[in-house]
Amino acid sequence: MATQVAPELLIVMGAGATPAQTEHVVARLAEVGVSARVSRGREATVIGAIGERDLLASLPLEAYPGVEQVLLIVKPYKLVSRELAADPTVIDVNGRLLGDSHFGLIAGPCTVEYREQTLETARVVAAAGVTMLRGGAYKPRTSPYTFQGLGAAGLEILAEARAETGLPLVTELLDPRDVEAVVDTADVIQIGARNMQNFILLSEAGRSAKPVLLKRGPSASLEELLMAAEYVMKEGNERVILCERGIKTFETTMRYTLDLGAVPVLKQETHLPVIVDPSHAAGRRDLVLPLARAAVAAGADGIIVEVHPRPEEALCDGPQQIPADEFAEFAREVVSVVTLMGKTVG
Amino acid sequence: MATQVAPELLIVMGAGATPAQTEHVVARLAEVGVSARVSRGREATVIGAIGERDLLASLPLEAYPGVEQVLLIVKPYKLVSRELAADPTVIDVNGRLLGDSHFGLIAGPCTVEYREQTLETARVVAAAGVTMLRGGAYKPRTSPYTFQGLGAAGLEILAEARAETGLPLVTELLDPRDVEAVVDTADVIQIGARNMQNFILLSEAGRSAKPVLLKRGPSASLEELLMAAEYVMKEGNERVILCERGIKTFETTMRYTLDLGAVPVLKQETHLPVIVDPSHAAGRRDLVLPLARAAVAAGADGIIVEVHPRPEEALCDGPQQIPADEFAEFAREVVSVVTLMGKTVG
Amino acid sequence: MATQVAPELLIVMGAGATPAQTEHVVARLAEVGVSARVSRGREATVIGAIGERDLLASLPLEAYPGVEQVLLIVKPYKLVSRELAADPTVIDVNGRLLGDSHFGLIAGPCTVEYREQTLETARVVAAAGVTMLRGGAYKPRTSPYTFQGLGAAGLEILAEARAETGLPLVTELLDPRDVEAVVDTADVIQIGARNMQNFILLSEAGRSAKPVLLKRGPSASLEELLMAAEYVMKEGNERVILCERGIKTFETTMRYTLDLGAVPVLKQETHLPVIVDPSHAAGRRDLVLPLARAAVAAGADGIIVEVHPRPEEALCDGPQQIPADEFAEFAREVVSVVTLMGKTVG
Amino acid sequence: MATQVAPELLIVMGAGATPAQTEHVVARLAEVGVSARVSRGREATVIGAIGERDLLASLPLEAYPGVEQVLLIVKPYKLVSRELAADPTVIDVNGRLLGDSHFGLIAGPCTVEYREQTLETARVVAAAGVTMLRGGAYKPRTSPYTFQGLGAAGLEILAEARAETGLPLVTELLDPRDVEAVVDTADVIQIGARNMQNFILLSEAGRSAKPVLLKRGPSASLEELLMAAEYVMKEGNERVILCERGIKTFETTMRYTLDLGAVPVLKQETHLPVIVDPSHAAGRRDLVLPLARAAVAAGADGIIVEVHPRPEEALCDGPQQIPADEFAEFAREVVSVVTLMGKTVG
Repeated sequence: MATQVAPELLIVMGAGATPAQTEHVVARLAEVGVSARVSRGREATVIGAIGERDLLASLPLEAYPGVEQVLLIVKPYKLVSRELAADPTVIDVNGRLLGDSHFGLIAGPCTVEYREQTLETARVVAAAGVTMLRGGAYKPRTSPYTFQGLGAAGLEILAEARAETGLPLVTELLDPRDVEAVVDTADVIQIGARNMQNFILLSEAGRSAKPVLLKRGPSASLEELLMAAEYVMKEGNERVILCERGIKTFETTMRYTLDLGAVPVLKQETHLPVIVDPSHAAGRRDLVLPLARAAVAAGADGIIVEVHPRPEEALCDGPQQIPADEFAEFAREVVSVVTLMGKTVG
Repeated sequence: MATQVAPELLIVMGAGATPAQTEHVVARLAEVGVSARVSRGREATVIGAIGERDLLASLPLEAYPGVEQVLLIVKPYKLVSRELAADPTVIDVNGRLLGDSHFGLIAGPCTVEYREQTLETARVVAAAGVTMLRGGAYKPRTSPYTFQGLGAAGLEILAEARAETGLPLVTELLDPRDVEAVVDTADVIQIGARNMQNFILLSEAGRSAKPVLLKRGPSASLEELLMAAEYVMKEGNERVILCERGIKTFETTMRYTLDLGAVPVLKQETHLPVIVDPSHAAGRRDLVLPLARAAVAAGADGIIVEVHPRPEEALCDGPQQIPADEFAEFAREVVSVVTLMGKTVG
Repeated sequence: MATQVAPELLIVMGAGATPAQTEHVVARLAEVGVSARVSRGREATVIGAIGERDLLASLPLEAYPGVEQVLLIVKPYKLVSRELAADPTVIDVNGRLLGDSHFGLIAGPCTVEYREQTLETARVVAAAGVTMLRGGAYKPRTSPYTFQGLGAAGLEILAEARAETGLPLVTELLDPRDVEAVVDTADVIQIGARNMQNFILLSEAGRSAKPVLLKRGPSASLEELLMAAEYVMKEGNERVILCERGIKTFETTMRYTLDLGAVPVLKQETHLPVIVDPSHAAGRRDLVLPLARAAVAAGADGIIVEVHPRPEEALCDGPQQIPADEFAEFAREVVSVVTLMGKTVG
Repeated sequence: MATQVAPELLIVMGAGATPAQTEHVVARLAEVGVSARVSRGREATVIGAIGERDLLASLPLEAYPGVEQVLLIVKPYKLVSRELAADPTVIDVNGRLLGDSHFGLIAGPCTVEYREQTLETARVVAAAGVTMLRGGAYKPRTSPYTFQGLGAAGLEILAEARAETGLPLVTELLDPRDVEAVVDTADVIQIGARNMQNFILLSEAGRSAKPVLLKRGPSASLEELLMAAEYVMKEGNERVILCERGIKTFETTMRYTLDLGAVPVLKQETHLPVIVDPSHAAGRRDLVLPLARAAVAAGADGIIVEVHPRPEEALCDGPQQIPADEFAEFAREVVSVVTLMGKTVG
C-alpha cells in the first residue's frame, strides 16, 4: 500500500481539457505557492494541491479553462470545528450552563409590548424553571406597517424582568449602532435568522464579551451557518450557540420546515452547542410541543420558545406563542424528554 | 351578527377586472349548477360559490379574464379526512396493531440480496421485538447499472422469512403487472416515494385486500400525499399508512430533509396512522437513531428502518443500514421514547 | 510535473479515522478488484481508486467506519454523455427534425376531451406551423375526483388528428400495460414528470421503436434526469428528448419554478436535445409567452405548449392553455426568437 | 346577482369550531374597529372582515381557538403596487433611463481589487455601450478568511472610474454607518441579496436621495421582495429597481436557480422596473450569456453582470466574471435580443 501526501484541494479537468490547460493551472498554483501533482485517467485528469487552507479556499480555479470541478478536501472552517476542540463547549451564562449534559430551556415573550406583559411572562417562565429569559426590543418585521418593537424602552423593561427573576437575558441585536446598548442589557446577544449573513453584525458580536446565539438563516446550508459562527469566533468570542429554526422549502403547511437532522449533523462537525427554536418553524402553537420534544430527542442542547399571557392580543407572532398559563405543563413535558436523554436542565 | 350560507369556493377578481368579467364568471358557474354571490370592495370583487366539492375543485376558473385568485374553502380530500372519521384508524395486520396508542416498529433489510442475509436479518429484528418485517424484492434504483432486486425469487425468500418469524411482511410493489404476486406474499403493500403519484399503482393497491404503506414523495406537499391516499381509499381500501421519509431541499449534508413537523400536521388532518422512515432521509447510519427518537417524540405511530448483517457488503443503501448486531440496542432506545409517549409497541 | 494514473473514485477518511480503518477500506476494494492508492495529509487521508465505473458507483463505501466523504470523479452516466457523442443528436420524427439547428415547436391540447375540441386545436396549430402535435389520452391527476382522460377512445381521436394534419403525435404513456396501444398511435412517447423515475415505464419505452420525450420530475436533479434517460438508452432506444418543465421550490406565485439554467447545463453534459414546457411551469396563460421566448433565448431545442379552443371550458389545466385564436400570434413571437438564435423551425 | 361589500380579510373556522369560538373572533374584531360578517356552510364557517389594511394584516387571528385559515384578500403592500401607479416607473440616473422601453445594461467588476483592474474594466464596458458601471468596495463574503473589499479606498477608485467614463455608478451599502460615504460616491445604492431583509439598511436607503437597486434574497418570496421595496418607498424614496438573482433550490449544478418567471410576475404586480443578475445565479461564466439573453426575452428591464480583465486572478467570484476582452461580443448578443423586444439601451 503505497502512500504519499494527501491533497487538500482537488481539481478535476474535464474530458476535453488539453494538456496546456492543465499545465496552465499548475503554473498558476505554483505562482501563489501551492504545490500540485497531476494524475491522468481514462476520463479525467485530476490535479491534487496542497497549501494554506485560506489560500486554497479562495482561489478562483473554476474560472480556468478546462476545469470541470473543484473539491476542497479540507474543511473551510477551523475555529468552530470538532477537529480543533474534541470536547463539547459548555457555555456558562451567569452560572446557567448550556452544552454537553446541560440543557438550556429558554423562554419569554416574542417581543416586549408593554411592561406588564413582559414581567408577567417572565415570572411565569421563571416559576416553571427555565434557565434563560428571551425577549425582543428591536424586531425585524416583513412589513413596514407592523409593530417594529419598542427599541431602547423595550431594553429597559427587559432589564427589569431580568433583575426581578434573576434569569440571564437573550435579546436580539439588529443594528450595529445599537451594539453598546444591547450588550449592556443582554447576557446573550441574539443574531436573528435574517441577519445570519450580516457580516457586519457578526463581527460586532464577535468583539463583544457576551455569548452569541446565532440563528440559522432560512436558506442557509449548515456549512454557511458554521462559517457565520466562524466570523464571530475569529474576532475572539468563543461562546457561540447555534440555533436551528426552520428552512424554506416547498411545503407550506408550516411557516418553515424544521430540519432536526441538522442537530446531529452539527454536533458531529462542531464543538459548539446546538439549540432549536420550534416556535418560529411551526408558526402555530399546537405544533410547538411535538417539535420541542422531537428536538430534545434528536439531541439538541436546548430549546427557545415564545410565551405570551394572551397570544390573541400579541403584536407579533401571536399564533405561535404558548399561552402563559399552559407553559408550566409544556415545560414538564419537555423536561421529561430531557431526563430520558440523560441530561439536566441548566 | 348577520349570518348567511358560507361559500365553499372564493374567486377574487383583480383590481382591474370589469363588471362584465365578473358577470361572465357568475354566468359560467350558473351553467354548471354552482350558485354564486358577488361582493365588491375597495380593491377587489369577491365571488363566493357553493356547489359539489368535486365540481368546485375541477373548474378552471383561473382561466377566466379578470380572475386573480381562486381559494377552495372546502378540503379537496374527503375519505382520508378527520372530518369523516374523528377517531384515529388502528390498522390490524395479522394481529399486530398500528395506530393510536399502538406503535409499529418495522425493520428488515433494504433489499433481499440472498437467502441467508434476509433470514439472518429477520431473526435479529424478530428477536428485538419488531412488529413487522420489511424487505424489498423489486427495487427502484436511480442508476440502471446498479442491483435492481431479485424480483420473484426475492419474494420467495421473504415468504420464508415471514413464515419462520411469524412477522407480517411489508414489501414494495413497483409494476402493476406484479400486483398478484406481491399481494400473495405481502401483508402490507408498500408504494415507494418515487411512485407516490403513480396513480395506476395507487388504484391497483386500492383494489387489493391488503393494507398499503404509502411513502411521501420527495417533492410532495402534505396535501398531495393525502390526495394520493385518497386514490387508494376511493377504490375501497381503507387501510392506508402514511410515511414521512424526507423531502428535497437545498441542504445537502443529508440525502433528504426529514420533515418531522409533517407528523403532527398530518395527524390533525387525517385519521390515518403516520409513520416515519429515518433511514432514507438520513442516508447515514449515525443519524438514524437520533432521527428515529425524534420521530417518536413528534408523535409518530411507528418507524420503519433498514438493517443488514454486514452493511459494508450491502448491494443497496449500505451506508444507512443499521448493523444487525446493533439493532437490539437501537430498538431499546426507541422503545424508551415510545413508553414515555404513553404508547406500547404493537 | 510528476504524473500518475488519475483516480476515478476518491474516498476521504475523516480526521479521526484510524490506519486500520483505512486499511480495511483498501482491503475491501482489493477483494472486488478495485485498485487503490492511499495518501495522507494534515487533516485527512485520501484513498484514490480505479476500477469499472458501474462497480465504483455501486460500492457502499460511506458505510465503512472512518469514511467521511466519497467522490465519484467519473460521471455516473455514459450513453447520454457528451463524452460518448460529441455532436448533438438530431431526432427525425417522420421527417420533422429536432436538435442542433432544428427547433421543435410542439403544441396541442393538454387532454383529449372530445373529438371536435381535439381536431379544431390540431388544425389551428398545424396552420400556425408547428412541427408536432401533442395531446393526452391518459392523464395523471392529483385528485381521483377529476377527469382522468378518455384512454383508448382518446388515442383514436388523436390518431384522426394526426392523419388529418400529417403532424407527428406526442402522447403520454402511463401504464406499462398500455405500451402497445400507445406505441401504435404515437410517434413520440411522452414520459411525464411524475413518472420520471418510474423505471418500469422507462425500460418499456427504451424497448420501443419510437422516440421518447422525457420530462424532468419536479424534484429531480439534472443528474437524476440524465440517469433516467440512461435507463431508456440502455434498452437500445437512442432517441430521447429531455424536457425541462419546472421544479418545486418555496416560491408559490407560479406552479413550478422554471429552471432555464438547466438548458445550457444539460446541453454541455449530453448530446441529447433539450426542450422546455413553459405551460406547466407557469400554470398561468399570461406567463407562457415570456417563458417560451426566454427558453428559446436560453438555447432550447424546442418548446411544448398547450392550446385549447375555449380554455375556460377545459377539463384539465385550463388556466395555462393558450386560446386557439391567439396561437398564431404566439407562434410568430416565438419564431422571431428562434430566427435570432440562428435556428429554423423543424 | 345580489351584491354586498366584499371582505378584505377572510377567516375560515375549522369544521370543529364552536359558535362561541366564532363569536369570540367577531367580538375581538369589533373591539379593534373591524366589521365582520359571518356565513355558515356544510364544512366551514367563514368570517369576512373589512377594516384598515395595516390593521387587518397585523391581527394574530391564527392564534384564536377554532381558526383554521386566514386569507388576506387585499395585498399587503401598497406603494410598490401596480394599483397605485398603473404606468411603469422609469428611473432616470444622471440621464440614463431604466424602465418601460429603456433597457439598463449594467456591468463592471465584482469587486474593486486595485486601481488599474477597475479602470481597465470600466473603460471596456463603457466602450461597449453600457448604461451604468457596477463595482463593490464593501463585499459580503461567506468566509471571514477571504477578501472583504477595499472599503473607503475602493470607493475612491470607483469615483475615479465614474469620473473618467461618465457612467453612473452602482455600488453596495453594507453597514448603516457607511451610508454617507456610499451615498456621496454612488449614483445607485445596491442592497445585496443577503441584506434584502436587513430592514435597518432598507430604511437608511429609503431616506437617501439616490435610487436603490434591491436584490432578491436567495430564499425570499416575491411578496417578501415587494415588502422589502415597500420599506424603501415608505421612507420617501420612490426610485427602486428590483433585481432577480437566483434562489436556493435542491439543484446544485448552478450556484442558484435563476427564477425568470419572477420577471413577468413582478411586472404585473408592481410599477417598479425589474432587472436580472445572471452572473451570481450561474456562478459559471459559460452560463451567463444564455441566461442574460433569456432574461431579456422574459421581459427584464435590464441586466447586471460582472466583468474582469483576468478572471483567473480575481479575488472574488472569478469563475462567473466575463473576461473583459469578450465583453463587447457579449453586449452585442444581448442587445440583439433587446432590439427584438422593441426596447432601446438606456
